Amino acid sequence: MRQVVGVMGSGDDGDAALLEQARQLGEAIARRGWVLLNGGRASGVMDASAQGASAAGGLVVGVLPDDDARRASSHLDVCIRTGRGDGRNVINVLSSDVVIALQGGAGTLSEIALALNAGRTVICLDIDPGDAFRSFRKAGPLRFADTVESAVALAAEVLGAL
Amino acid sequence: MRQVVGVMGSGDDGDAALLEQARQLGEAIARRGWVLLNGGRASGVMDASAQGASAAGGLVVGVLPDDDARRASSHLDVCIRTGRGDGRNVINVLSSDVVIALQGGAGTLSEIALALNAGRTVICLDIDPGDAFRSFRKAGPLRFADTVESAVALAAEVLGAL
Amino acid sequence: MRQVVGVMGSGDDGDAALLEQARQLGEAIARRGWVLLNGGRASGVMDASAQGASAAGGLVVGVLPDDDARRASSHLDVCIRTGRGDGRNVINVLSSDVVIALQGGAGTLSEIALALNAGRTVICLDIDPGDAFRSFRKAGPLRFADTVESAVALAAEVLGAL
Amino acid sequence: MRQVVGVMGSGDDGDAALLEQARQLGEAIARRGWVLLNGGRASGVMDASAQGASAAGGLVVGVLPDDDARRASSHLDVCIRTGRGDGRNVINVLSSDVVIALQGGAGTLSEIALALNAGRTVICLDIDPGDAFRSFRKAGPLRFADTVESAVALAAEVLGAL
Repeated sequence: MRQVVGVMGSGDDGDAALLEQARQLGEAIARRGWVLLNGGRASGVMDASAQGASAAGGLVVGVLPDDDARRASSHLDVCIRTGRGDGRNVINVLSSDVVIALQGGAGTLSEIALALNAGRTVICLDIDPGDAFRSFRKAGPLRFADTVESAVALAAEVLGAL
Repeated sequence: MRQVVGVMGSGDDGDAALLEQARQLGEAIARRGWVLLNGGRASGVMDASAQGASAAGGLVVGVLPDDDARRASSHLDVCIRTGRGDGRNVINVLSSDVVIALQGGAGTLSEIALALNAGRTVICLDIDPGDAFRSFRKAGPLRFADTVESAVALAAEVLGAL
Repeated sequence: MRQVVGVMGSGDDGDAALLEQARQLGEAIARRGWVLLNGGRASGVMDASAQGASAAGGLVVGVLPDDDARRASSHLDVCIRTGRGDGRNVINVLSSDVVIALQGGAGTLSEIALALNAGRTVICLDIDPGDAFRSFRKAGPLRFADTVESAVALAAEVLGAL
Repeated sequence: MRQVVGVMGSGDDGDAALLEQARQLGEAIARRGWVLLNGGRASGVMDASAQGASAAGGLVVGVLPDDDARRASSHLDVCIRTGRGDGRNVINVLSSDVVIALQGGAGTLSEIALALNAGRTVICLDIDPGDAFRSFRKAGPLRFADTVESAVALAAEVLGAL
């Protein structure tokens, strides 16, 4: 079975620097030979990371909140249609061997919390979800990176230890 | 249809003051005639709030992560067995007209995030989930209370406006 | 915790005799003091059984496929909003101590299959899902009734043995 | 996005002819360039079809009922860990562009029903789920094949029309 890196972040398209960061992260994940898994929509961090990974020849799996693929990114290889809205957030984190979280909204925060609760390491790229997560986390560790390179290096460390 | 107040918080039994607060909150919710909905387990804030509401004659619905009732609180009237672990957290918040969050772990944080993402008002009782939630929230407002009475008063205000 | 009888059947309103049967079944379930659980929508067997139970003073829980209550029956006491389409069918059967299945479509057939797979007894009221179910069922028994009275008597037998 | 064929069937290992049929089906699906999606466990039709597809160089996605991979087939490329038991059956059929159903139990029957309810074509390979499915189905057509070759030819016809 191939190792899977989950990438979570904003579904909005407004922040060009964030999208470029997501694209580079997707590319770096694909170059390492890892599968990229994200929320599958054709917008924001989901679309940009999928595009980066796909252009670099990686395998991209999107886990959609929808029950059809109308809003899916065109850069997915496989599209899991869950039909359960934010109910798919748990599936995203359970199906990832490690999670990298970028800037995002409440949905991204829920994925950070669910990942920690499921014992996954969450690598925060250029974000800090705050003290609540530091003190409340139970099983999964929270790590911090400020560049794509260091996030990927941390991911390699986590995956190597699995 | 009756109005439903969701109560989210720690599943641990270690903090006696927290359990007493949860018990009083359950009682106050029942006295107002609202249905109490929580995660349904026989521990922590779930069990204590169910006990308080049940003793006051209220209706208590537990939405269990489990597919059977072996770990269910004995103070539930109805037990929804979801069989989906933290996948039930979304159901908890969608099924609540307003959410009151007490001290808890990563599961509780995920419920706060999911509730905000679903447009629910979240009333934080004696907790502050931090800046991340303030700036990241999209649709649902975050309110703060430091007593059971003020939390219930805020809930009444929210429910009255629905 | 109160005993829960799940009622599954068509969401269509076209068959007046079926709706009347569902209404009578809801009434009989409420008279026995059981909670009625169904799919929660304002149509077909769901709405009719909820109406019957509610008019007889029973407690009615609807487990909606939707994430809001716009399509919910007005005869529910509690409305569980799952936001997961047919993904809620499993929750319906897991949350029922016994299932009574009326005439329905593919959704109803899926609930019969899921209930049997979860070890629930399924009482078929005036329907026969066919040989496939007889030979394929693993854990849950399939029972048959041709009147509301006999279905309720079978349910009492099953619930008494739990 | 690549086209996905869902293969549903028994999780038991007792029927050698069925396992060989599943293996050949997996191989034929991979040779056509389709992604094989199944329930992901290391037993029965799931494991055998994954093995056949994997040996032929195909991409295999398993959608597990579990929240970890301990019971996963070793022939998967990507393993979606849903943590929701039979709640994942809906995800299996929604994520498949066409479903091929082999001999199975109540879980397989539920997937046939859910697939029809979601508008998917279900190709029955050497099985007949009975009259109930013929008359109850709403949107999705039920097709029949008695060899792997004819099942795959029917699948090609369905996928070509999408």
